[in-house]
Amino acid sequence: MTETNKNIKEPRITLVGAGPGDADLITVKAIKALKTADVVLYDALVNEELLEYAPANSTKVYVGKRSGDHTFSQEAINNLMVDYAVNYGHVVRLKGGDPFVFGRGYEELIIAAAHNISASVIPGISSSIAVPELQQIPVTHRGLSESFWVVTGTTANGKISNDLVDASRSNATVVVLMGIHNLAEIAEIFKLQGKNKLPVAVIQSGSTADEKIAVATVDTIVDTVEESKISSPAIIVLGEVVSLHPKFQLIKEVYDFVARG
Amino acid sequence: MTETNKNIKEPRITLVGAGPGDADLITVKAIKALKTADVVLYDALVNEELLEYAPANSTKVYVGKRSGDHTFSQEAINNLMVDYAVNYGHVVRLKGGDPFVFGRGYEELIIAAAHNISASVIPGISSSIAVPELQQIPVTHRGLSESFWVVTGTTANGKISNDLVDASRSNATVVVLMGIHNLAEIAEIFKLQGKNKLPVAVIQSGSTADEKIAVATVDTIVDTVEESKISSPAIIVLGEVVSLHPKFQLIKEVYDFVARG
Repeated sequence: MTETNKNIKEPRITLVGAGPGDADLITVKAIKALKTADVVLYDALVNEELLEYAPANSTKVYVGKRSGDHTFSQEAINNLMVDYAVNYGHVVRLKGGDPFVFGRGYEELIIAAAHNISASVIPGISSSIAVPELQQIPVTHRGLSESFWVVTGTTANGKISNDLVDASRSNATVVVLMGIHNLAEIAEIFKLQGKNKLPVAVIQSGSTADEKIAVATVDTIVDTVEESKISSPAIIVLGEVVSLHPKFQLIKEVYDFVARG
Repeated sequence: MTETNKNIKEPRITLVGAGPGDADLITVKAIKALKTADVVLYDALVNEELLEYAPANSTKVYVGKRSGDHTFSQEAINNLMVDYAVNYGHVVRLKGGDPFVFGRGYEELIIAAAHNISASVIPGISSSIAVPELQQIPVTHRGLSESFWVVTGTTANGKISNDLVDASRSNATVVVLMGIHNLAEIAEIFKLQGKNKLPVAVIQSGSTADEKIAVATVDTIVDTVEESKISSPAIIVLGEVVSLHPKFQLIKEVYDFVARG
């Protein structure tokens, strides 16, 4: 490729965080990247309204990866990304939430580097903080939590991460992404630490019209989620900060009632 | 206040995350809130370019709170926020990063509720994830980190959080906000766990023109930060993921050279 050949664009890749779902939770920087995209490769949890920021004649490809439904393998996505960049120019890799929070974003940067394609990253609003926040549950709050720990509920080998066992022993607010299918097992891990009464929230499709929340304790969360018909995609928040949610006030009143006999 | 009295606006408060510093790391939702602001109360670490989204005739008040420089106490900010809402209408409380990540945002929601003022929160890009990300350091990466733990380096009582001691024992990527003044003490905590060679990055003013980074190990980070003249505001990242930064490759080569004798 030479500078005199104006027909072939310089290949480049921008990983862009699309946020948790609400199309307005996109950044100005992300919109600017989309406006110069020749190709957009987008994941399952990305709001498709965001594609309207890309030029009308750009190519939009759904690579629909989500837990349990690997439409494209990571390897296939990597290959597509490189091929499109080499042949079309600017590829925007639009990913749910933030690209570096369990998004395998760094693996895509490695692939770009291996092909000498310049690549950059634009952070997105991460569900781990924003989804509880939009339910007015703060991940940190004086007197309740001095830290928060974000863990994946589904590791590469399909097992629960050992980090989750460590997290259950900590005083941090624990946020579990992609963990709803392992909710019963996660609750058991916290019960082993005697945290049966720790408040838990499970939030499905946070920031979207389909948003649902279940609030309970470690002891009761599995039943509550089942009754509420909450399913994937969902995040789990375990910690005293969940007691700030109005739904938890009702639970406290029941406990107090039972305690009084 | 009655519906027929059109001169007095309904008081309301919106907590808005301004992101890490780059004015383009603001969300569309935040811009929409700013456009309807009657008053903007903004913190020290907020990019003042963002004020241009607010109407020209809106009131902009700098409440300049940052560690070591409490221009306004939290109580004074709370009072201002309520007074402005009652007298002017829509107050946008523009806060650096994300309002619920050590931003005392929830305390401001409580104040609003105590005054029967409706309040909502708009998440911002949190420095905890985005500042390392813009340096191409992922907080999670397969094979290196299955979780990340975000801790404050300055608690209400001025002491190091016990959560940081627990974090030093974990396999999580540890991100410390507002911790640079306690960097030596934080390094000691990790040394007690034998993590002398753990990679550490300290990033000042991430996402802005003043951005600086120091990359070292737990053993050498205090000297490296001093040589690099890095100061507040800065975040600290401790974990194997820091080894992915190009500056760490040089450190590895030196270690290998020394190891070979």
